[in-house]
Amino acid sequence: MKTDIEIAQSADIWPIEKIVDQVGLSADEWEPYGRDKAKVQLSESTQQNKLGKLILVTSINPTPAGEGKSTVTVGLADALMQQKRKTMVALREPSLGPVMGLKGGATGGGYSQVIPMADINMHFTGDFHALTSAHNTLAALIDNSLYQGNPLHLDSRRILWKRALDVNDRALRHVTIGLGGPTSGIPREDGFDITVASELMAILTLSHDLDGMKQRISRIVIGYTYDKEPVTVADLGVEGAITTLLKDAIKPNLVQTLAHTPALIHGGPFANIAQGTNSILATKTALQLSDYTVTEAGFGADLGGEKFLDFKTPLLGKVPDTIVVVATVRALKMHGGENKQHLTKPNLTALKQGLGNLGQHLKSMKRYGVPVVVAINKFTHDTAEELALVSDYAKSFGVDAYVANVWGQGGSGAQELATGVVQATERANYQDFKPLYQPEDDALVKINHIVQEIYGGHKAVLSAKAEKQLATFKKYGWDKLPIIMAKTQNSLTDDAKRFGAPTDFDIHIREFMPKLGAGFLVALTGSILTMPGLPKHPAALDIDIDSDGHITGLN
Amino acid sequence: MKTDIEIAQSADIWPIEKIVDQVGLSADEWEPYGRDKAKVQLSESTQQNKLGKLILVTSINPTPAGEGKSTVTVGLADALMQQKRKTMVALREPSLGPVMGLKGGATGGGYSQVIPMADINMHFTGDFHALTSAHNTLAALIDNSLYQGNPLHLDSRRILWKRALDVNDRALRHVTIGLGGPTSGIPREDGFDITVASELMAILTLSHDLDGMKQRISRIVIGYTYDKEPVTVADLGVEGAITTLLKDAIKPNLVQTLAHTPALIHGGPFANIAQGTNSILATKTALQLSDYTVTEAGFGADLGGEKFLDFKTPLLGKVPDTIVVVATVRALKMHGGENKQHLTKPNLTALKQGLGNLGQHLKSMKRYGVPVVVAINKFTHDTAEELALVSDYAKSFGVDAYVANVWGQGGSGAQELATGVVQATERANYQDFKPLYQPEDDALVKINHIVQEIYGGHKAVLSAKAEKQLATFKKYGWDKLPIIMAKTQNSLTDDAKRFGAPTDFDIHIREFMPKLGAGFLVALTGSILTMPGLPKHPAALDIDIDSDGHITGLN
Repeated sequence: MKTDIEIAQSADIWPIEKIVDQVGLSADEWEPYGRDKAKVQLSESTQQNKLGKLILVTSINPTPAGEGKSTVTVGLADALMQQKRKTMVALREPSLGPVMGLKGGATGGGYSQVIPMADINMHFTGDFHALTSAHNTLAALIDNSLYQGNPLHLDSRRILWKRALDVNDRALRHVTIGLGGPTSGIPREDGFDITVASELMAILTLSHDLDGMKQRISRIVIGYTYDKEPVTVADLGVEGAITTLLKDAIKPNLVQTLAHTPALIHGGPFANIAQGTNSILATKTALQLSDYTVTEAGFGADLGGEKFLDFKTPLLGKVPDTIVVVATVRALKMHGGENKQHLTKPNLTALKQGLGNLGQHLKSMKRYGVPVVVAINKFTHDTAEELALVSDYAKSFGVDAYVANVWGQGGSGAQELATGVVQATERANYQDFKPLYQPEDDALVKINHIVQEIYGGHKAVLSAKAEKQLATFKKYGWDKLPIIMAKTQNSLTDDAKRFGAPTDFDIHIREFMPKLGAGFLVALTGSILTMPGLPKHPAALDIDIDSDGHITGLN
Repeated sequence: MKTDIEIAQSADIWPIEKIVDQVGLSADEWEPYGRDKAKVQLSESTQQNKLGKLILVTSINPTPAGEGKSTVTVGLADALMQQKRKTMVALREPSLGPVMGLKGGATGGGYSQVIPMADINMHFTGDFHALTSAHNTLAALIDNSLYQGNPLHLDSRRILWKRALDVNDRALRHVTIGLGGPTSGIPREDGFDITVASELMAILTLSHDLDGMKQRISRIVIGYTYDKEPVTVADLGVEGAITTLLKDAIKPNLVQTLAHTPALIHGGPFANIAQGTNSILATKTALQLSDYTVTEAGFGADLGGEKFLDFKTPLLGKVPDTIVVVATVRALKMHGGENKQHLTKPNLTALKQGLGNLGQHLKSMKRYGVPVVVAINKFTHDTAEELALVSDYAKSFGVDAYVANVWGQGGSGAQELATGVVQATERANYQDFKPLYQPEDDALVKINHIVQEIYGGHKAVLSAKAEKQLATFKKYGWDKLPIIMAKTQNSLTDDAKRFGAPTDFDIHIREFMPKLGAGFLVALTGSILTMPGLPKHPAALDIDIDSDGHITGLN
């Protein structure tokens, strides 16, 4: 059986001009990056196009068994194209850190992939590198301000702006910098986040244009003065330089799927400490250029899904026409208590016990008033009985479920799903959309809506620190910002080990992080790692390239 | 008067296809990056082309008055093109750190520039970002090996591989990493270099192909075991992954000058701790595609010039046909003791006193048996008398000098220089080339040749540490490696404050740094900063971009 990269490498990739023509871009609306990638910037007239339909792909809580959300997203789009519907995919860009670590790439799998796979998984068009560069330039400017007489009276113990690298490097989580004597800066504690966790990543993916991005950048709170007053990038006066460094990164990237469906891949913010979906510009561009845009949100429906509907949707100005919840028999068995080792064996008992996880996500997604369907992403060992059990369960929520074999068959394996999704979009009515909370609600009210209606729990419990923070934030109006929940992706609760669909739980808010540039308030539950580490056998050990540039071992 | 960026922005830039056609590349020999940049990889048949002539531009010791070496390089190439000679420029890529700091960009100036100026000065085609990424991936893999049981028995106090960022950030010179407890690595001292100081930068610019690059990468010494035995990248087993990350960065980048002369801009190693010139591949590619290649070497003839002739020339397999030594009246006056504030006033006394600096460089360059000419880069306030004095002085060495006004007039201001250079190349005879030392010479013998014949000093004096290192290096054969002198660029001596042409001095070698991947031994004199800092008023404060993407303040 071929590996993902072998399938990708043997693909008949089209020159990007052919994809550009298919999409209908004029010469001034795109720039090539190599022979099979482009950056896109629509003209004002194309931006007036009527928006197509938006299909949001989300999932049950991820497990080590794998759900294949990106694979379903790509396969569904290819299926729609096979049905002669003008379709585009909108996805996040992969982070290089995990590619060299454990996770591998993030370009789908099997016969449902976006290509050129190796390029997309490594440097692509340089967006993440531009972000890393902009992030660390800002950090250097902050420490230089401290060093050059500290005119902003920054408290060196209260700098919020860390440094960033797109590498899995646990040794950089906690560092001390500025050592080496008077010519090498002011010693202080610091740390590195992975680039996708940078507030600049959230900003890039939330901005409609350069001006909007500059305004957001100028609002970033970089730290506090000795009087505990917030200091922003505007106070430092470098929003122009930082925006300049992101002038190309703001443009969505155009590539193709194995079946030549046009795909916009742009930005990759975390789905816990940020909104977890590709850029607003990419989604908007796809909507302006196609009749059907298939996009995904990170992690499960409780994280990426909720954030898409409560935070991204108002900014995008477009409600999804259908939500696809991806589930697998394997993952549901794990939610029912089965071990990873035994997933290839039929086990209806475990499956039944795990179905509740799917159920909670169906309930929570249905509450928004958007049509919902289930995609059962089929794996080799799934039995007909198991698949039927999941389908019947979905139907008990009034939701149609479709078995899709996108890994093995690409778009051909998702024909029924595609037809079901198109039918579902016909039922969509924007007036039915029911937001979870109102912008003017207090932070705690917003969080309790999420805990109760999305997670199925009791209530939010704030730590003493979080309570105190909220009181302080009132002074600046930060308590009214949209809420971004930073919670484990593995459970509906804040305990990564509680699978299935627990009901008897509270959510514990340890701390808030104000992200004024991105324009949200992060509520941290437990400890969220913003710099991953490498495993004992990093993927890097298996990656190689020969004299002709042929790459092996990239997955 | 227009600023450099205003001139660059108002230029009539040609689509890169037009430059590609002019150069004669076939479709499979190049890839576009945007509309005005390309990456080039010659076919095997084009690589059989007869090599054109090579013109090396170097200079007197740089002063704060400015020499304009890149500007002369570009202006001279444009002048040759005006004379209907098929010409290409080969230059280094600018580093982003100084662009945001004090120095500004490195794309020439006035009417002798390479464009697109802002792109080249910022992310360009991502080469430096790929290097940063590869460098830090290797660093993370090293710390991960320490963390995961340390199978290579690395001594955490003797890790040589630091981390790297393309930012001027003095606070990162000396850091401690791995803090935060058992889950966040092994605490140890570390530091960051600017990306251009990475050994990977030297390797990228010395490699002829992917295989050669992988071999060099595998030889990098990353640190020592507790038994003080060297540990290499090959021991870690990740040369394949690191090479894969550099698969596109190894290809030279094609752009154009304001006058549409094709320019290959590729790599940018330091001229003190590395060889200080653009990649071998870019120089070779230019030689294969043109009749005249104009290239430059970093800093003065004592650093970049010497390294080009003693280190790069044998690897390139091509001796320069002419060496152009750039001098300015202003800089020579500073070498004669004049203050920077008074340079616009005529001062023949100071000029006479400073001429010795030019003289030493003419002597040292002439000794290689390559024709030498002087380019006097004219500034507004230079008087005819001053210019004549410099010309006459050069003639006393049997060297012709030509006044060039490339900043104000582009190629038209360098017609006489171009004609003189072409005539000089007719005199070149490879059999005249006299290397400074033999590969089998001992390190100290090599260094003494450099000190005496290039710097005009007495001898090299080794510190106790350096002596001890040489004794140790004998064990591994490292003492026979080519020597790369890391010395201040401002003086022929190792004291940055000694201008002119001192004769009564020794050179003090503090320490050696073995760079087995790059394949040279760095001899450190004094302390060489490998991570610059930002000034009180960083250039970033003045850089801005408007809603149309128009950039201001970049210089």
